Amino acid sequence: MTFPHSLSAQLTDLLGERYTEGRSDRDNHAGTEAHHDAMPPDAVAYPVNTEEVAAILRACRNARVPVIAHGAGSSLEGNASAPQGGLCLDMTRMDRIVAVRPEDMDCTVEAGVTREALNTHLRDTGLFFPVDPGANATLGGMAATRASGTNAVHYGTMRENVLSLTVVTAEGEIIRTARRARKSSAGYDLTHLYLGSEGTLGIITEISLRLYGRPEATMAAVCTFPDAGSASTTAVEAIQMGLTPARMEYLDAGCIRAVNAYSAREDTEADTLFVEFIGSPEGLREQVALFEELAAANGGKDFRWAKEEEARNRLWRARHTAYTATVAQRPGARGWATDVCVPLSALPACIDHAKALLDDCPVPASIMGHVGDGNFHVVFALDPEATEERALLAELNARMVAEALSHDGTCTGEHGVGLGKQKYMADEHGPALDIMRRVKAALDPDNLMNPGKVLPLAQEARR
Amino acid sequence: MTFPHSLSAQLTDLLGERYTEGRSDRDNHAGTEAHHDAMPPDAVAYPVNTEEVAAILRACRNARVPVIAHGAGSSLEGNASAPQGGLCLDMTRMDRIVAVRPEDMDCTVEAGVTREALNTHLRDTGLFFPVDPGANATLGGMAATRASGTNAVHYGTMRENVLSLTVVTAEGEIIRTARRARKSSAGYDLTHLYLGSEGTLGIITEISLRLYGRPEATMAAVCTFPDAGSASTTAVEAIQMGLTPARMEYLDAGCIRAVNAYSAREDTEADTLFVEFIGSPEGLREQVALFEELAAANGGKDFRWAKEEEARNRLWRARHTAYTATVAQRPGARGWATDVCVPLSALPACIDHAKALLDDCPVPASIMGHVGDGNFHVVFALDPEATEERALLAELNARMVAEALSHDGTCTGEHGVGLGKQKYMADEHGPALDIMRRVKAALDPDNLMNPGKVLPLAQEARR
Repeated sequence: MTFPHSLSAQLTDLLGERYTEGRSDRDNHAGTEAHHDAMPPDAVAYPVNTEEVAAILRACRNARVPVIAHGAGSSLEGNASAPQGGLCLDMTRMDRIVAVRPEDMDCTVEAGVTREALNTHLRDTGLFFPVDPGANATLGGMAATRASGTNAVHYGTMRENVLSLTVVTAEGEIIRTARRARKSSAGYDLTHLYLGSEGTLGIITEISLRLYGRPEATMAAVCTFPDAGSASTTAVEAIQMGLTPARMEYLDAGCIRAVNAYSAREDTEADTLFVEFIGSPEGLREQVALFEELAAANGGKDFRWAKEEEARNRLWRARHTAYTATVAQRPGARGWATDVCVPLSALPACIDHAKALLDDCPVPASIMGHVGDGNFHVVFALDPEATEERALLAELNARMVAEALSHDGTCTGEHGVGLGKQKYMADEHGPALDIMRRVKAALDPDNLMNPGKVLPLAQEARR
Repeated sequence: MTFPHSLSAQLTDLLGERYTEGRSDRDNHAGTEAHHDAMPPDAVAYPVNTEEVAAILRACRNARVPVIAHGAGSSLEGNASAPQGGLCLDMTRMDRIVAVRPEDMDCTVEAGVTREALNTHLRDTGLFFPVDPGANATLGGMAATRASGTNAVHYGTMRENVLSLTVVTAEGEIIRTARRARKSSAGYDLTHLYLGSEGTLGIITEISLRLYGRPEATMAAVCTFPDAGSASTTAVEAIQMGLTPARMEYLDAGCIRAVNAYSAREDTEADTLFVEFIGSPEGLREQVALFEELAAANGGKDFRWAKEEEARNRLWRARHTAYTATVAQRPGARGWATDVCVPLSALPACIDHAKALLDDCPVPASIMGHVGDGNFHVVFALDPEATEERALLAELNARMVAEALSHDGTCTGEHGVGLGKQKYMADEHGPALDIMRRVKAALDPDNLMNPGKVLPLAQEARR
């Protein structure tokens, strides 16, 4: 499509220098994170408040121009690229923390606030926001993809921690999806309808979030296992026996090797669980003892416990580096991450299945998982120039997804659908996909909100 | 409307004696719980599986006849009455527990299974399903109204505890809203779209639920306060300081008086908190000590702690009897319960506001609340023959709702909208109500699914 000149003029009037059609701005919003192709928008706008977003959406609707919201750009499935062109809304200047209400244990932020910025702001309140997808994503982006990460096993995902959203609809109307009450039965749950809709139903501009008191005490541990099965089984059994870790992460032996090489560490190169418990000092001691006993029964050894923040951070640094270290094994490589999530008891079988697939795979890869939730990633270090590698990884991903679906799991636990997972939506949802399409048609009848994403429309044209 | 003869014949062919137009069956499904008028359906069907529900919905759609799902009949806002006539689907014969999976800590049940039946079935597994709205409601009804109750402060509501639903759409298509994975980012959140939709978008026929390990130890306590403010402030402060009670309930002095009269108890007739802590024995002791200290600082006294199940049940019996005992204060009376829920810090002000309204109210009333969630009910013992009493209670309810909305609260924390709360939907949701209407039109274009409920349609004709 060509970008209408009249719209350019209108947006320039509205936004001044915060509207641009410059090459570098467009390239910076092309959705190039991970392995997806660059698909730049025709123009980029930098709104600073909800009313501006509404005015922009009204203008774009009149001109029949697509609108794609863009946060930190850390999404992994091409969620924020512009396959049909259009206007990218860079939300990062909407970075105001609107209100923190310690007395209600909640806060309201603009969509461009990052999770690290929020937690820095909260430092003196004794409260924090737990959802942590690894990247310093914007909270708007995290809401739009229903993100989660390491803490979800204890605190839940964005799904459980958003009280209310301010959304601009495709028509440029400003709505609030709910009140800030902790629960409500007042009609359809619009909050959850927009959470995970990846900007295809409207643009999230403000978010009210639950906050939590910082835990009294924290204890982290690393423990190695003879193989993937004993590690994942330990994780599953810990949940089944009622332990409530704040985080419980699995890294395979190859991943530890990659991290050692990347960070000049000397951790034992074995399948490893990272686990963290929180609570009162007494409660901690009980949980830690139970976990240690359970892990040992499954062959776990080399326990390293860390109580002080510095020591914990040192342990966790390996986990935080895992993605980067895996990709760094190969110069010039780019990351490709799978993201299945399955019912708890199916996790060991699915990880074993993935491991077997990797045995014959020439592409360097690590397995890392939020195993307390049944969610794990295989991260590949893809040579972006090698077409046959892409085809191979697509095939391996398809086989992991098929395995997950056969266990009543999902093709994506936390990365969203974007472009990359559309091919699995029909298999995962069956006739329910038609309900999603009807919702989309009802709320975005002109298909201008992040078109070509989430729903595999039959005739979605690539420009 | 008149019920088409051809549809009667078709449903008789399909269901035999499980289809009836008999007077008593119709009257038993007229939605007469609480204060709403009887609005019987034209006929009642008793399906036994999802395929039958689908066949019934296809037949009703062809005949343009409304369909209303009906569980235990314990809803309080006319949620399951038939203001436009049509066919009532009594779901109680769909009472099969499809699967219990201790290894995944979840289960799948048909919609007619009651929460007590499920928990009885689970008795030997060490697991239980925590959501407890008081009445022995069906899990389908609880899902349809997004119910909660006493345990929600710890375990969440139906919103947090449903993994997946099987739904029959208005067209008679069978869909599943999600896989059983604990988290997913795979497209629109249809589970939450149907949760709380009160049968207006489709009929829930199966539900997959999260289960929890029974707590190692439990301790319940009762404690009295000099006034409502000190009791509700204690509850709010307990949450703010990070205590995690399994339940925390408030009963006002008048309610205790009603319970004493009804149950021949001799509890101190004062504003009272009921609280229950769970966990390991060590963790319990800490929480209990902290709570006692906090309550005492707010004037709490007469602590009675109970650890053994029998003693705990004796304490809780007062809470469980509160609704019945309040209504029983007046022979022939019927219950009318308000249901606002507000952000935590607004709770004391809202309860004080309600108390002031009751000062001049001639209708016997109690205040009881799930105060850890900011949710409370005023239960009135209404004389059903006294028109002016209804008008008065409607006025008091409207004032409590207005107060709650002014604190960013909701008109209904857990009872749903049904007929009773429609008048507040525009005030609560503003322009978001239009989004709900568009979703309704997209998924039920002929307005046959529980018509006249949830959404205040402009021209909803009363037959």
